[in-house]
Amino acid sequence: MPTESSSEPTTTSDTFAESWRRTQALRSDLDAHPERYRVLTGDRPTGALHLGHYFGTIASRAELQDQGVETWVLVADYQVITDRDTTANIQENVRGLVLDYVAAGIDPEKSVIFTHSAVPALNQLLLPFLSLVTEAELRRNPTVKSELAASGRALSGLLLTYPVHQAADILFCKGNLVPVGKDQLPHIEQTRVVARRFNERYAPESPVFPEPQALLSDSPEIPGLDGRKMSKSYGNAIALGMTADETAKLIRKAPTDADRNITFDPANRPGVSALLTSAALCSGRTPEDIAAEIGDGGGGALKALVTEAVNDRFAAHRARRAELAADPSFVHDVLAAGNARANEVAEQTLSEVRAAMGMVY
Amino acid sequence: MPTESSSEPTTTSDTFAESWRRTQALRSDLDAHPERYRVLTGDRPTGALHLGHYFGTIASRAELQDQGVETWVLVADYQVITDRDTTANIQENVRGLVLDYVAAGIDPEKSVIFTHSAVPALNQLLLPFLSLVTEAELRRNPTVKSELAASGRALSGLLLTYPVHQAADILFCKGNLVPVGKDQLPHIEQTRVVARRFNERYAPESPVFPEPQALLSDSPEIPGLDGRKMSKSYGNAIALGMTADETAKLIRKAPTDADRNITFDPANRPGVSALLTSAALCSGRTPEDIAAEIGDGGGGALKALVTEAVNDRFAAHRARRAELAADPSFVHDVLAAGNARANEVAEQTLSEVRAAMGMVY
Repeated sequence: MPTESSSEPTTTSDTFAESWRRTQALRSDLDAHPERYRVLTGDRPTGALHLGHYFGTIASRAELQDQGVETWVLVADYQVITDRDTTANIQENVRGLVLDYVAAGIDPEKSVIFTHSAVPALNQLLLPFLSLVTEAELRRNPTVKSELAASGRALSGLLLTYPVHQAADILFCKGNLVPVGKDQLPHIEQTRVVARRFNERYAPESPVFPEPQALLSDSPEIPGLDGRKMSKSYGNAIALGMTADETAKLIRKAPTDADRNITFDPANRPGVSALLTSAALCSGRTPEDIAAEIGDGGGGALKALVTEAVNDRFAAHRARRAELAADPSFVHDVLAAGNARANEVAEQTLSEVRAAMGMVY
Repeated sequence: MPTESSSEPTTTSDTFAESWRRTQALRSDLDAHPERYRVLTGDRPTGALHLGHYFGTIASRAELQDQGVETWVLVADYQVITDRDTTANIQENVRGLVLDYVAAGIDPEKSVIFTHSAVPALNQLLLPFLSLVTEAELRRNPTVKSELAASGRALSGLLLTYPVHQAADILFCKGNLVPVGKDQLPHIEQTRVVARRFNERYAPESPVFPEPQALLSDSPEIPGLDGRKMSKSYGNAIALGMTADETAKLIRKAPTDADRNITFDPANRPGVSALLTSAALCSGRTPEDIAAEIGDGGGGALKALVTEAVNDRFAAHRARRAELAADPSFVHDVLAAGNARANEVAEQTLSEVRAAMGMVY
């Protein structure tokens, strides 16, 4: 589900272990029967997608799609205002998201790319769903709690009800599989509760909604260039859409240390190790292998290698992105088609919901 | 706004006095310039409309309409589940509401009669609006508090966010005048806050929403036949749609007292006084006048007079209602037309909201 959240683990390890075990079983079944699954995933358009997003979620979405899994990708534009009072730059951010999705191999002919704000029947589901949960349950949601703490603001009505809106995101298209990081497991549990209660209350004979499962990410946490969490606001993130020069410039500013002998040691050498991790992810090698190759070549040699690895890895992505961006109506057309498909499915689901609730007059 | 709430005063007397003063000014301006006003009003379809609704709100809606005020009447079907886990009988209740509206003179050619569940673009406004209020503000709402207490249940997400949904009801059609009882003044204040914050944040140059005003009801509280609040669940309510015989039977069961001399004394003789009030409202006389007429005729004579007064007053309404009910597609057609109009206006407003927020891609 929409990423850009903190990476703090917020579930008990029991739940996590169980989800992890289930994820392994799901991966086997996915390989055998991709047609059984409908995946809902997406992002908040709060900034440019970067390497963390790419290796964390974007690349695996394209893989799921190519494996034959029906994939729905949500640009969660209303979720931008859960923790801020402005939608500044939202057009630029949404545009960048769509360009990166398609450049990364998410094919709008196969997958549905759509925005919250354009699908009223999806959003309407928030109403019946809000009746199925208590305020106490909403307040207990660990992800809401940690996002609230991170925002440093008063809890808004939208942040409080955000897990229920996510339930609407997943259930409107009857998604049954949701790729998540472990910090987002509580949202999937909330969605399962909403689906179960709706079915029990209004459709006990023939359930309207599936109870979706979490597909837990196996990607390692990808550090920013300074070893902290990768985030645009820290200035430590290599955006997918950067030019090779911008990439080189950003890497040049990355903090290393005085020891010319390069080793992979995340705890004691966060900067050096983060650079090694980036190069490793981009080149398919291990960080230790790269460190050994550089030996005592120092930070300069390391940075040159990282720059080359990143720019090589994303050269094709960036060329494709630039090509798509040159067509002024491309993003508009992708979203128009995706939103039309999402509306069609949302209206169908909403009419099932109305029928189950007896709201047909 | 949707009635069926408790009648506890929940605002400070200062606010009330101020609203009352403003209401007097509004009534003068309404008489002079009805075309300046768009009224949003409505009901939760939780049961049959009764005399309390009629003299409290329904009759005055028809008057506003006939005065030339654009009038929107909302059947708030999602609000049924703010305080219960079922939509049982909702079709029957909605059908009854529409028949009573039209029989009472609300003309579907002049006024818009519509349901929540059929207007997705209205409901979508809940999303941006929820970002404009804090959870603390929602919890502080006195009407939410009193409805929560009355429900005897855990606070649901839908009850908590209900004032924001009401803001969407009022603002989607840019209603600028909302007839309310004093217990609902906090909702109007919440709507004004939502409108103001939206305009300030997203449309400071050309405001999207008006800040609606409360038109405070001048109707007295109408007691049920036993002197308690009139409510279907107390069995003390004369439904508009009852037959003359059903009305007679219900009035026959009303509690009076042993004193054969009939006097109007609500504090000490709640049953007798409630009967006198009902007869007075239906006949346009004062309760004291009716009491004097009966003198020491006792409860039997009083009940005969009340029965006749009610049945005479609603004979035409009931005949018209039966006539409308005989057309099996009447209610469907009224709602289809009203919902179409509401959707048209809601989509227009939603596209202004998207434009103001920059959510146009």
